[in-house]
Amino acid sequence: MRIVVTGAGGFVGRQIICRLLDRGDSVAAVDTVGSGIPFGASPIVGDLADPAIRAAALAGGCDAIIHLATVPGGAAEADPAASRRINVDAMYDLLLEAGAANPGLRVIYASSIAVFGDPLPDSVDDSTPLSPRMIYGGHKAMMEDAVAMFSNRGAIDGVTVRLPGILARPKGPSGMKSAFMSNLFHALKAGEAFTCPVSADGMIWAESVSRCADNFVHALSMDTALLPSTRAVTLPALRIRMGDLAKEVARQCAVSPDLVTYLPDADLEIAFAAQPPLATPAAERAGFAHDGDLATLVANALATLS
Amino acid sequence: MRIVVTGAGGFVGRQIICRLLDRGDSVAAVDTVGSGIPFGASPIVGDLADPAIRAAALAGGCDAIIHLATVPGGAAEADPAASRRINVDAMYDLLLEAGAANPGLRVIYASSIAVFGDPLPDSVDDSTPLSPRMIYGGHKAMMEDAVAMFSNRGAIDGVTVRLPGILARPKGPSGMKSAFMSNLFHALKAGEAFTCPVSADGMIWAESVSRCADNFVHALSMDTALLPSTRAVTLPALRIRMGDLAKEVARQCAVSPDLVTYLPDADLEIAFAAQPPLATPAAERAGFAHDGDLATLVANALATLS
Repeated sequence: MRIVVTGAGGFVGRQIICRLLDRGDSVAAVDTVGSGIPFGASPIVGDLADPAIRAAALAGGCDAIIHLATVPGGAAEADPAASRRINVDAMYDLLLEAGAANPGLRVIYASSIAVFGDPLPDSVDDSTPLSPRMIYGGHKAMMEDAVAMFSNRGAIDGVTVRLPGILARPKGPSGMKSAFMSNLFHALKAGEAFTCPVSADGMIWAESVSRCADNFVHALSMDTALLPSTRAVTLPALRIRMGDLAKEVARQCAVSPDLVTYLPDADLEIAFAAQPPLATPAAERAGFAHDGDLATLVANALATLS
Repeated sequence: MRIVVTGAGGFVGRQIICRLLDRGDSVAAVDTVGSGIPFGASPIVGDLADPAIRAAALAGGCDAIIHLATVPGGAAEADPAASRRINVDAMYDLLLEAGAANPGLRVIYASSIAVFGDPLPDSVDDSTPLSPRMIYGGHKAMMEDAVAMFSNRGAIDGVTVRLPGILARPKGPSGMKSAFMSNLFHALKAGEAFTCPVSADGMIWAESVSRCADNFVHALSMDTALLPSTRAVTLPALRIRMGDLAKEVARQCAVSPDLVTYLPDADLEIAFAAQPPLATPAAERAGFAHDGDLATLVANALATLS
């Protein structure tokens, strides 16, 4: 298969591409910068809002698209016009053009739990309505509808997966407000102190990047008749107390858990550490899975830390 | 209040504007043609995709917007790019600009039952997921998310109302595939024969235009805390057997019901005359209502026939 991966140089994209190359797929890897794209993929470096970049991605045939490229949450909030241009308009154009070139191709769309809004309702399950507040979540929700529409028309065969917190992102600025969860791993692995901006009792939803990549690869070949009529599922995630996560990371890194202190920021606490009970039976029926338990999640996350 | 009504020359817009003028509101009436705009409103003639037209609509202050302007279903299917330009992009720009000019203004958005897709599921209620198939329904669904997002941010105070079949539209081409329901009224009132393109046993959801206008006026002053978190409600509608509707229209027009014959078109039957049981408790809690019974609906529709 020739598979187009957008956002190919991101930490999720790289993991997915390595799996695809390992199994013999041809990968067209689109990103605004080429440096993160794994060796072996065909790099297409540029902006998805540029018609020439989309044409290059689709040239030579496209059996499936894994669409990860995004203006992330914090960046979208700072520049809503950029989010609209990339997260809505460019993606819509990509779906139109891909569906015209190869009607019915599989498209896997990385949406976000931000579609549910913040603060989240008292519990989240497959019937939770979408009520986004952040620009990022609003634009992701709009494009969930577009994926459903294009799928119902036969232009694409879409799968929308809503990502929880993915652990662990690389160091450095990501534009993601949730980056603190990953920075915990980096600090403790380096034996450094970490000031956690949410409380020890804060509850987060998390999935390791390797488990997340497995879920995307699964979405390439799954039977989409198993999906809800919206084509969208919230990926299974472990619901973890932040203090328990810190202790387990410290244990596996063989450092003292006392390296972690807590200085909660009210906005971050509400947005990312007040996550209610989560039920994802639709995703589980469709074959998606979380890491299983906290120790496995932390081990998976540490194994890919970069 | 100074209220902007888009799609002001349409048959729903005209009814709403007459009510607003009667109660003393100032109305800025936007439409692409001026001929249908009621006397007493301030006409703004042009395309909502034109920034100058949007600026003219908002100039002089805007306490609320009733957004009816749309590329309708059949026309959207024939020209998806026009639907995207008007039903998505121009509306998004209007929300942005209105929310910047007067944060928190009431916006009432005319969405459609097309967001549920066709064929419809076996029943529709407030938990039915959005799974549009038509371009029109897809774009309406995308903008429902935008209304929720802008409302959650405080930019607007949005109310999305999904319209069922509205009876009766004026004669002539409307771009609406559901126009046959209205043409029944025009034919029988004129004592003419009518070939119905759906079966006598076909089930439709309907509301009279005057009842629909009452619902929009209600939406201007209702407490939006009564709405679901999505800000969207499906308007209450009567579910009517097409043959019963024809008989009641004939009775009130004092013509023979035998003027109506049935020659079902498979596509129209699926899209408009296979409407399942409908429950709209969220809308009813928020004070929206249908016509009450079939005789009242038909009387209301005949009273405004033009």
